[in-house]
Amino acid sequence: MGDHYADRLNAAILARRTAAIVGIDPVYDRLPASLRPEVVDLPAAVAAIETFGRGVIEVVAPLVPAVKINSGFFEAFYELGVAVYYRLVAYAHERSLLVIGDVKRGDIGSTARLYACGHLAQPAFAEVDPTRLPDAVTLAGYLGENAVGPFIEHARALGKGLYVLVRPSDPGADAVHEFGETRHFYEHMAELVNEWGSDAALRGVCGLSCVGAVVAPKDAASTARLRTALPVTPFLVPGYGAQGATAAACRPCFRAGGDGAVINASRSVIYAFDNPRYRERCGDDWQAAIALACRDFAADVAQVAYGREP
Amino acid sequence: MGDHYADRLNAAILARRTAAIVGIDPVYDRLPASLRPEVVDLPAAVAAIETFGRGVIEVVAPLVPAVKINSGFFEAFYELGVAVYYRLVAYAHERSLLVIGDVKRGDIGSTARLYACGHLAQPAFAEVDPTRLPDAVTLAGYLGENAVGPFIEHARALGKGLYVLVRPSDPGADAVHEFGETRHFYEHMAELVNEWGSDAALRGVCGLSCVGAVVAPKDAASTARLRTALPVTPFLVPGYGAQGATAAACRPCFRAGGDGAVINASRSVIYAFDNPRYRERCGDDWQAAIALACRDFAADVAQVAYGREP
Repeated sequence: MGDHYADRLNAAILARRTAAIVGIDPVYDRLPASLRPEVVDLPAAVAAIETFGRGVIEVVAPLVPAVKINSGFFEAFYELGVAVYYRLVAYAHERSLLVIGDVKRGDIGSTARLYACGHLAQPAFAEVDPTRLPDAVTLAGYLGENAVGPFIEHARALGKGLYVLVRPSDPGADAVHEFGETRHFYEHMAELVNEWGSDAALRGVCGLSCVGAVVAPKDAASTARLRTALPVTPFLVPGYGAQGATAAACRPCFRAGGDGAVINASRSVIYAFDNPRYRERCGDDWQAAIALACRDFAADVAQVAYGREP
Repeated sequence: MGDHYADRLNAAILARRTAAIVGIDPVYDRLPASLRPEVVDLPAAVAAIETFGRGVIEVVAPLVPAVKINSGFFEAFYELGVAVYYRLVAYAHERSLLVIGDVKRGDIGSTARLYACGHLAQPAFAEVDPTRLPDAVTLAGYLGENAVGPFIEHARALGKGLYVLVRPSDPGADAVHEFGETRHFYEHMAELVNEWGSDAALRGVCGLSCVGAVVAPKDAASTARLRTALPVTPFLVPGYGAQGATAAACRPCFRAGGDGAVINASRSVIYAFDNPRYRERCGDDWQAAIALACRDFAADVAQVAYGREP
């Protein structure tokens, strides 16, 4: 087991015996009432978001291999929120979690080099605490190879990873991704991702590449076709829970041996304290409710697959 | 002339008699030597970036209608850089410039609502200085209507705008955007942008929508076809200067009357002090070199088109 991202992720999946990961997408209005101050201004709101994020990370850390922290929910609070994003990445690392930064960046090559510094690597002239930077990021590959290339270089050098959007979970995305006659646009994106990421030098001991794909489970047949088209590509699978997908629907995202995918749930776990099913048992203890929901989610995914012994 | 984004932009273009806009893409290693401290750490680098950005804005403000500030170049410095991004937006407003935030965000609807708060609007519960937020943003529309919808709602309510990527300037993007048999993917994206943005309620007095498109000038025929396919869509045109496009190549991006587009140049203007042509005349006065290059750029674009009297 080396320092390759896919090997590190596999090891964490085997240790927790689940490929379930939790998405940290905190919306101020949905935080537990006890965390929301009576008078809200921007710093108070951001502080509440941070307390909540730390509380979620604390309870899910023993249960799942990784968290996915969605930058958008922090950027809503400008630089104050961005600072919290980085602090939560560091805190998740402190709790021995792998971290996927869900940033979905995508720009032309000259700009992508800068985005890669801010989100995966470091600027050459000034070191920052490396635990503040995630182990992998999500990317939009629609501006082509140059938009993704700088991230691949850093991923390879640092034992990190990236997940390029191939089939997004939002049904509205179908109007874009199902474009095409004999072949759909998402199949074309899959082919490009395979080109960019299948080089042997990019693969870990487990055989998986550091270049992954975001693949939402739609119908089983098309998901299975993507799995076949991307034999060495780790999948990050959105859509479970609040977005409607079941663990069974996620099954075709795994490789035959049971590895190759992580399944993300965000809202169904982090807002479990609002779900009567957990509220009944946990009352106002929002962390207990999140822990219970996370256990159920982890077990549900584990029934389907949870990696493969090396 | 109302408060609609396209009307405000048109008025600014007519006032400066050019549709040229300057992109603020500062890379630390390329800053004037006089701005780079001997010992560099993250705060010192960020301070140099801010001084440079303010200096660029100061000299281009009388010459062009707007600046495009590229978030990626600031995100490279984590939350410190993001704070500078917002301060430069405010400073450009102070100097009477319109500001396009080049953020290229694109995520599913539930996340897009948050991104729209951070980049165009405000969170409901906590007001920030509204001059810190740009007048328009660039977006990736690849996750479909829900990814763009929250931005359109805010743009309509606040007199702001957005530009959806339709034909990016990076040649590497062609592998994505020229996908398709009878029709290319970028033509499909153009059709979607037209659907999302052509409603009469989204148009200003000038007839242009608040929903724009990023269209790099490739061959004249395909650019002209995009102009025809997007009759009420304002274009943001990248690729001039360092990326190789001439003003003449940008001509098909304008509507017949001469309005409907802004042409962006970044590196060829902001690094003019490194260009022998300007260095010869300005020596170490980097602001003078930028001013001269900006004048040349503005005049070059003005020869082609600079808006239409209302």
